Amino acid sequence: MSDATERGPRRGDPETLLERSVAGDRGALARLLSFVEGGGERSRAVARLSYRVAPPYVVGITGAPGAGKSTLVDQMVEVARRGWPATSARDAAPAAGPEAVDQVAVLAIDPTSPFSGGAILGDRARMQRHATDSSIFIRSMATRGHLGGLSLAVPDAIRVIGASGIPLALVETVGVGQVEVEVAAASDTTVVVVTPGWGDSLQAAKAGLLEVADLFVINKADRPGAAEAAQDLRQMLALGGEREWMPPILDTVATTGQGVEGLWAAVAGHRAHLEGSGLLTERRGERVEQELRRVLGALLGERLDRLASSEEYRRAIEDLRSGRVDPYEVADNLLGSS
Amino acid sequence: MSDATERGPRRGDPETLLERSVAGDRGALARLLSFVEGGGERSRAVARLSYRVAPPYVVGITGAPGAGKSTLVDQMVEVARRGWPATSARDAAPAAGPEAVDQVAVLAIDPTSPFSGGAILGDRARMQRHATDSSIFIRSMATRGHLGGLSLAVPDAIRVIGASGIPLALVETVGVGQVEVEVAAASDTTVVVVTPGWGDSLQAAKAGLLEVADLFVINKADRPGAAEAAQDLRQMLALGGEREWMPPILDTVATTGQGVEGLWAAVAGHRAHLEGSGLLTERRGERVEQELRRVLGALLGERLDRLASSEEYRRAIEDLRSGRVDPYEVADNLLGSS
Repeated sequence: MSDATERGPRRGDPETLLERSVAGDRGALARLLSFVEGGGERSRAVARLSYRVAPPYVVGITGAPGAGKSTLVDQMVEVARRGWPATSARDAAPAAGPEAVDQVAVLAIDPTSPFSGGAILGDRARMQRHATDSSIFIRSMATRGHLGGLSLAVPDAIRVIGASGIPLALVETVGVGQVEVEVAAASDTTVVVVTPGWGDSLQAAKAGLLEVADLFVINKADRPGAAEAAQDLRQMLALGGEREWMPPILDTVATTGQGVEGLWAAVAGHRAHLEGSGLLTERRGERVEQELRRVLGALLGERLDRLASSEEYRRAIEDLRSGRVDPYEVADNLLGSS
Repeated sequence: MSDATERGPRRGDPETLLERSVAGDRGALARLLSFVEGGGERSRAVARLSYRVAPPYVVGITGAPGAGKSTLVDQMVEVARRGWPATSARDAAPAAGPEAVDQVAVLAIDPTSPFSGGAILGDRARMQRHATDSSIFIRSMATRGHLGGLSLAVPDAIRVIGASGIPLALVETVGVGQVEVEVAAASDTTVVVVTPGWGDSLQAAKAGLLEVADLFVINKADRPGAAEAAQDLRQMLALGGEREWMPPILDTVATTGQGVEGLWAAVAGHRAHLEGSGLLTERRGERVEQELRRVLGALLGERLDRLASSEEYRRAIEDLRSGRVDPYEVADNLLGSS
């Protein structure tokens, strides 16, 4: 790999791009993430290079549309760059001193993109704010075309960020159905953002939110109803019974930055809890096992698609339609010879 | 197969049971359907025997809980047994005379059963009503354990009914989410049952209902709001634009039987449309192709499960957790050697 940069024709290959990304070339990182989005062999090559390096610390931020997640994430980036605060480490974590966060990546996952064909989260506008600052990398992510959709593209993208030497990734998504669960599964700390008066609209999602949240944020906390929203959340949490980690509930006003330092300190507290209890290592192990299951499922799905476009399959369909054979017989034959 | 009934030890095998079912033994049919429910090799053996015989005509009945579907289905059974009415055959169908329906099967699909472990639709109570009538077969169906869940168990059960010589199957299910779509996919004619005042509660499901409905029934039409419900449906249909088959909207009062003959005539009209236009053959061909895809997916899923319980897999997980390998490499290795 040492001489890869000298090979002109291979400048766009994953290895070279990753070297350039590690050296701080944000264009190279963007291209690697495009490979991941696009799926296929090139995506796999990128992922394989990235998996040997430890992942970044991943904070997932999810919540209903209009909750102010993007603004909150922008503020978190500013605060996070001052480093991890020292924590009281009540869970026997080593009392780590302030730890540098020299680079931050923001991944804005657009769950609508497989259908609309484009990111809607306005990362261009957001990019401009940080355009002159190469220590911040912001990227909207569509997942159309990826082998396993969102559930594989996000973990792969996170690995690429880690392999590029960025120690912190904020993954932002609209909390709709399965997406928030998948982003939470890829995150070390999951922040669920609600707003005053959220109760009715998210009634149905309450159970799901409770499951994924490590921290709750009531954003727009200067509006009426913030105290009631906090009370609602406390009741929900109480109903869930005892738990090893009780999610704190924090107030923020993302537009002014109010409460964001407190939020970042709470994220650090959760991280200290995970590290101190050994949960961080354990969960990351479980996560990579889940990823293996998804990769296996996706590869088998690819085999199925290849099979379905074969001449043998076309003939089998004819036999099937005519009633000469049954689907189980055809399936056995097709899989036996694949 | 001719001497199968003489073999004492094989009396419970699928071939023998199917012969007995064809001869009118409802206990044998019930056992075959239990095999289908239970999944596994025996389920597959039953399905394979059944697929060479033409399927019954399948009428799916779906709608919200409490819409009166069970009562309506019971009434439809009574009317259907008088035979298919002659239709005007406006779609160039041959003007078929009254056609006998000597036997009817009712499948009540309980979508909650994979979790609760039992059917809740009270088929025992319903069975008693028809207990002395061997031309009517009623069965609640759970789908726990079946290879491909509901989406394979229902088509397989329908095939078993057809192979037993029963020409008509009414498949009843609560219209919740994916289940109604899957039952509709297995049906020749899909009846969506609503009630006066249904509008608000099913707002969200409207688009889905429109897609699957060949006929709408407003049951409990003696209650206030029936005309408004019909008007709502007409507007929904009008918004959907031109279509080859415009679903009729019928009023019934299942508890008294009012309107059920009209409903049955409308089912016959839809059947004549399908037969006259060639759509029946075409759709059944597409359906068996879909079933092949599901069988292939399920078989590959089984392979994945077998793989996941192997010693090789356990070792791969250890390597994965330690970071020595990446999921893509592991997946390639596992699938290559499976």
